[in-house]
Amino acid sequence: MSKKLTKRSEDYSKWYNELVVKADLAENSAVRGCMVIKPYGFAIWEKMQAQLDKMFKETGHQNAYFPLFVPKHLFEAEEKNAEGFAKECAVVTHYRLKTDPNDKSKLIVDPEAKLEEELVVRPTSEAIIWNTYKNWIQSYRDLPIKINQWANVVRWEMRTRLFLRTSEFLWQEGHTAHATKQEALEETELMNNIYAEFAEKFMAMPVIKGSKTESERFAGAVETYCIEAMMQDGKALQAGTSHFLGQNFAKAFDVKFTSKEGKLENVWATSWGVSTRLMGALIMTHSDDNGLVLPPNLAPTQVVIVPIYKGEGQLEEISKVANKLADDLKEAGISVKYDDRDTQKPGWKFAQYELQGVPVRLAIGPKDLEKGSVELARRDTLAKEFVNQTEVVEKVKHLMVEMQDTLFDKAFNFRNEHITEVDSFDEFKKVLKEKGGFISAHWDGTAETENKIKGLTKATIRCIPFNSEKESGSCVLTGKPSEQRVLFAKAY
Amino acid sequence: MSKKLTKRSEDYSKWYNELVVKADLAENSAVRGCMVIKPYGFAIWEKMQAQLDKMFKETGHQNAYFPLFVPKHLFEAEEKNAEGFAKECAVVTHYRLKTDPNDKSKLIVDPEAKLEEELVVRPTSEAIIWNTYKNWIQSYRDLPIKINQWANVVRWEMRTRLFLRTSEFLWQEGHTAHATKQEALEETELMNNIYAEFAEKFMAMPVIKGSKTESERFAGAVETYCIEAMMQDGKALQAGTSHFLGQNFAKAFDVKFTSKEGKLENVWATSWGVSTRLMGALIMTHSDDNGLVLPPNLAPTQVVIVPIYKGEGQLEEISKVANKLADDLKEAGISVKYDDRDTQKPGWKFAQYELQGVPVRLAIGPKDLEKGSVELARRDTLAKEFVNQTEVVEKVKHLMVEMQDTLFDKAFNFRNEHITEVDSFDEFKKVLKEKGGFISAHWDGTAETENKIKGLTKATIRCIPFNSEKESGSCVLTGKPSEQRVLFAKAY
Repeated sequence: MSKKLTKRSEDYSKWYNELVVKADLAENSAVRGCMVIKPYGFAIWEKMQAQLDKMFKETGHQNAYFPLFVPKHLFEAEEKNAEGFAKECAVVTHYRLKTDPNDKSKLIVDPEAKLEEELVVRPTSEAIIWNTYKNWIQSYRDLPIKINQWANVVRWEMRTRLFLRTSEFLWQEGHTAHATKQEALEETELMNNIYAEFAEKFMAMPVIKGSKTESERFAGAVETYCIEAMMQDGKALQAGTSHFLGQNFAKAFDVKFTSKEGKLENVWATSWGVSTRLMGALIMTHSDDNGLVLPPNLAPTQVVIVPIYKGEGQLEEISKVANKLADDLKEAGISVKYDDRDTQKPGWKFAQYELQGVPVRLAIGPKDLEKGSVELARRDTLAKEFVNQTEVVEKVKHLMVEMQDTLFDKAFNFRNEHITEVDSFDEFKKVLKEKGGFISAHWDGTAETENKIKGLTKATIRCIPFNSEKESGSCVLTGKPSEQRVLFAKAY
Repeated sequence: MSKKLTKRSEDYSKWYNELVVKADLAENSAVRGCMVIKPYGFAIWEKMQAQLDKMFKETGHQNAYFPLFVPKHLFEAEEKNAEGFAKECAVVTHYRLKTDPNDKSKLIVDPEAKLEEELVVRPTSEAIIWNTYKNWIQSYRDLPIKINQWANVVRWEMRTRLFLRTSEFLWQEGHTAHATKQEALEETELMNNIYAEFAEKFMAMPVIKGSKTESERFAGAVETYCIEAMMQDGKALQAGTSHFLGQNFAKAFDVKFTSKEGKLENVWATSWGVSTRLMGALIMTHSDDNGLVLPPNLAPTQVVIVPIYKGEGQLEEISKVANKLADDLKEAGISVKYDDRDTQKPGWKFAQYELQGVPVRLAIGPKDLEKGSVELARRDTLAKEFVNQTEVVEKVKHLMVEMQDTLFDKAFNFRNEHITEVDSFDEFKKVLKEKGGFISAHWDGTAETENKIKGLTKATIRCIPFNSEKESGSCVLTGKPSEQRVLFAKAY
């Protein structure tokens, strides 16, 4: 398989699809819309998981596990949630297959093994979890409950793309229960902030925090907060959401508690999640026409060492230096791989690690042995330099920080250059078409206008940014008064 | 809820069920046969996962993720595997629900959203994985592939018990592909050994390694190796299995590779797994009538500190000492919790941590402040002693090792005392009824005899132990010649 990718400028979408497969991140499976996450892709996801899990635990959350299936009567209980997910859910109706009497090599569904009640494969777990919380909560002393779950979920999508939209995906879903509205709102904001911190510090991906409009809200939520990122093609990607669920689920599942004052009240809820979609966001934020570019904080292998040699004797000499360097780097907390396979040539290896986004490549050849040097190439800028062997560890340690910052800054500048304030609908359409990115514009606050704009341009309101100032203006479509600009974009 | 448990001697099964729920490990859910793993139970499972994952990676395995669903035609491909799991699998037949026209508050399966081909929720992933490996393997250079997956699987069990047998459970499944039979056999043995090492060193649970008879083998395997443990009621529990799959799946999915010699050959396979069933094994190996007993290596909290005080002033003084101790213990790598909640009394806390199996409890009262002491109680022996505050860290570090050993030794002795050699079928029945445990007996090697014994006694052959010596004898039931004793037991 050629390592050559379609150029982003030629066909961004094709570039992405090729990159995901060629860099060994994921591939399509025999099941419509479900992906196989390959070891290298999964190693990146594991780094994300580990960091998020740490941040959740540091803020007092615990992990637990709830059933994969939701009985239909529970699925129905919260009306809006049910309505939102019923259209795209996988339904288990039978619990047995049997041999086909007409063809003994085939199996058919056994009609005698029909379930009394259908089971929905969870598209999200509010229903099954709030039905459980009901038994856990009697008094204010039982609150708050702050639980997270790492799980697979299924939403039967008709048009799928690796990582970005798949019928099955992996995610985490936090589900918390609180005694007061205030506390639940604070939790909703805290988790959105944690997502933003993770995106910016670990993924090196700048995000805008804000709230969703009613039409873009999670089905069953009172408020949805989100972090929105911008991809290199100028399209937006919703990278995480945190929902204030009010008392909707408590009411649907009759979850009440006795307050300190002795009153029986409904519990307040939040839920929040990020998914393997973040892999798509990571890829599209930094990668280039040569392949994946990974921020050091999430790279499974941060440094690869490649020997350049002729004959076994030379390899042995180089390996001494390489193994010493590898040990020293490991000791400094850097993950490193020494690739001395003799089945592949150095050029092949260079291309492979470039494609897979390993942040730093060290090459050691016979001349380096003489000079006590190594050739160091950084993946983000593709710059190369010779470094003294004695200075490699310090240099690499420094680079891990610098590259992380460089990637963030580059993405940050790109994002900021692609936020355009517009004040007329003609300008809106022109910017969207010619430049893309976020369009900051006034909106009259109605779902009707939002829908019209979506129909006319495919752009949706990505969020009402938290940090935007109040400013009087008139709606870009209707001219009606508005107090604040919101961000429009075409989105993944 | 009372913390008091039914005694093991009264009703072992009831004791287990109560313990799992009262110690906050797991509970039944609204979905038949599926459990909710509560935060405390999940924290133990996470410790198990982390250790196993480390051991898998140290032996060159990588994690990946494959789809939850198996299309029916793939599920059918390996005949024995299909036959083994068809009887108990959840089947997805539709991908949408719609509003019930007769009752707008209800949802029904949308008959127009019937899948062209049914999807089986994975009971195990050989089929979907070997269908994927087919595209990954062309040459001997692509081998070996050594992949592990942490996942949920579903087997529609009619009689379920928390952790021991549930319709959905969590597990890891390793799936490896090799160029030679020898290499695959070595992998099968290596992973069985890793399971044994994990069971003994981390769970403090002695196991017997052996191979399964044909009738107890994994559906589709050529050989199944296993580790068998013994519970306190004398029943056996299969704690892990490692399968040599021969070329069965390679043939079923047509997975061939070009060997070094240029010949086209079928690939050799293994698969291996342990599940949340290990939680049941852990509980039943060590726990007592007061509750859970956890080996320090798997305890989420190894030490709990409880203040005993009257009034805020006293608490403040005690907290100074307690926080210092907690910090010192943490620095020594011990996980510790200081429980200064004022909503519960010390007695309640003592009972709670005993029930939850926290290995060491430290209590600090006013007299301890005067004397510079703490009261230390160990969970395994329930022994208490006063320890100088300056000596606590060393004492606890030492105890973490000692308690781990003590628990293993106790279980080891119990297990060994419950292996009985018998040479007649009357004795077989007598020992099984009066003493239980493993019965070491000669067997004529036929499935017919094995089945008869099972029918007469409910005992099955747990394994043909690897370490047992060749010994001429005659089958305990038929009197036919036999070369080796095998282990029979009633099993979970």
